[in-house]
Amino acid sequence: MSNQGLVVVGSVAFDTLEIRDVKKEMVLGGSGSYFSTCAGYFSPVRLVAVVGDDFPAAHLDFLSSRNVDTSGVEKKAGKTFHWSGRYSDDLSSRTTLDTQLNVFADFRPELPQAWRQSEFLFLGNIHPALQLEVLDQIKDPLLVAMDTMNFWIGGGELPTLKKVLERVDLLVVNDEEARQLSGEHNLPKAARAIRAMGPETVIVKRGDAGALLFHDDRVFATPAFPLETVVDPTGAGDSFAGGFMGYIAKARDLSAQSVRRAMVYGTVLASFTVEDFSLDRLRRLTQAEIDARYRAYRDLTHFEELHL
Amino acid sequence: MSNQGLVVVGSVAFDTLEIRDVKKEMVLGGSGSYFSTCAGYFSPVRLVAVVGDDFPAAHLDFLSSRNVDTSGVEKKAGKTFHWSGRYSDDLSSRTTLDTQLNVFADFRPELPQAWRQSEFLFLGNIHPALQLEVLDQIKDPLLVAMDTMNFWIGGGELPTLKKVLERVDLLVVNDEEARQLSGEHNLPKAARAIRAMGPETVIVKRGDAGALLFHDDRVFATPAFPLETVVDPTGAGDSFAGGFMGYIAKARDLSAQSVRRAMVYGTVLASFTVEDFSLDRLRRLTQAEIDARYRAYRDLTHFEELHL
Repeated sequence: MSNQGLVVVGSVAFDTLEIRDVKKEMVLGGSGSYFSTCAGYFSPVRLVAVVGDDFPAAHLDFLSSRNVDTSGVEKKAGKTFHWSGRYSDDLSSRTTLDTQLNVFADFRPELPQAWRQSEFLFLGNIHPALQLEVLDQIKDPLLVAMDTMNFWIGGGELPTLKKVLERVDLLVVNDEEARQLSGEHNLPKAARAIRAMGPETVIVKRGDAGALLFHDDRVFATPAFPLETVVDPTGAGDSFAGGFMGYIAKARDLSAQSVRRAMVYGTVLASFTVEDFSLDRLRRLTQAEIDARYRAYRDLTHFEELHL
Repeated sequence: MSNQGLVVVGSVAFDTLEIRDVKKEMVLGGSGSYFSTCAGYFSPVRLVAVVGDDFPAAHLDFLSSRNVDTSGVEKKAGKTFHWSGRYSDDLSSRTTLDTQLNVFADFRPELPQAWRQSEFLFLGNIHPALQLEVLDQIKDPLLVAMDTMNFWIGGGELPTLKKVLERVDLLVVNDEEARQLSGEHNLPKAARAIRAMGPETVIVKRGDAGALLFHDDRVFATPAFPLETVVDPTGAGDSFAGGFMGYIAKARDLSAQSVRRAMVYGTVLASFTVEDFSLDRLRRLTQAEIDARYRAYRDLTHFEELHL
């Protein structure tokens, strides 16, 4: 069994959020936190991250209680990564007010020996050179997926990023990142160009317009789940990736049907995350609620059969 | 049989389009042209519109060849409605360069007597007072749907528009119009507010993000069909409405399943329209192509079953 498992390398952070009239200070955030909590609903998760000595044990205890092995979370002297941002009133855009990398600035992800034969790996949005180091540490995974961001695409690290792309199976990016990376505005063309760089599968996230999966000559479209109440969009993309990879790791099935279900679980998990601040909705989210929304999502998108 | 049929009241126009490096002058356009050509694939269409004495017989002959009864197209002395616009290079926005209403300025839609017991009516985007006049001319229709635009929502005609809304079953608007009309940014909330104004069903079009159908307490989401080549977005919304209403008029079935299929046919027709300038793609579009894309659309959106 030691070769099974899902490893995620990402950030565990404090977020300070200004959303409409509310300010939330130093709440739990970071791509690794959202990803692993969401993935943990489906499969055990092995989290590789770094926190400072100011990081509360209660946060790690929470993750541990959610099927997340935190023994790969390094605790270093200093402060934890802290991001501050303000959202526009319609939640369609956000401004970074402050980024304190702190201990994350010197993060050198080191996979515990027992995790180096894990079958599934998700490379969160870290420096592409570090993503390469992680790839060198893992042996024959079944599926490697990665995230990245405009900062690495537009900067001097693009050649390094391209080396990572050559070695991964799946890229998850948002629409603007896909356009920037490919130089193509049209998303199907952008996805084709990116697939030629290495990843056999490309997922383009489009915020409240949903996501598109490009694989072989097929496309699968997942509209966002319509919600009357959206409180905090932070972590929606990481929750999508967590739900997606968690389901894949559970199913151990890379067929088109399995990957499509993973897209839906990713969409479902993201739809819960945005219903409250930070990870608060996930703290009280039950498996039964996930199952019910999965069925509701089927009703949202399917035609032809009777659902009445 | 005289009480059956689908009536559309809309514009038949000349468009002058500037898209990327191409300028197309005085090509066939107008909501009524797109709507009726698309609806004609499914059901006979009765078109109520006005053109000037400069309007080529060939255009009317084209519509007639497509299942469209043009005996409700009034020919008046003067020039035909002429719209000119330029699109941004990524086709996401357009600027109106010139609008010459010409004979359309005095359009007073008059339904031929034999059409006044038609079962299905689509009120295109005309002055709300004229939409009311048309409603007074039709007897006991099964379904009345309407379009409108920001110009009527934001202007002094809002009270008149609200009278129309009270009398229709279905409103088709884009996302910005839905937000403006309801005062709600969130689309599910906006749709709920609009449904309280009269229409039992609301369809919100979101351009390349697809469309949402709100009906009872259910939502149905149709992502746009992903295309590598988009040439001219003009008429996409009218084509959607035409495919939608054409299918409904053919099926004569207002069940949830039927309305969902209509949403998909609307999406499919719109996806063809944008593949070429003006109505050029529709001129060569075959029923077999529509059927094939309907199946492709099912593959785009369905999970759970095997499609391989």
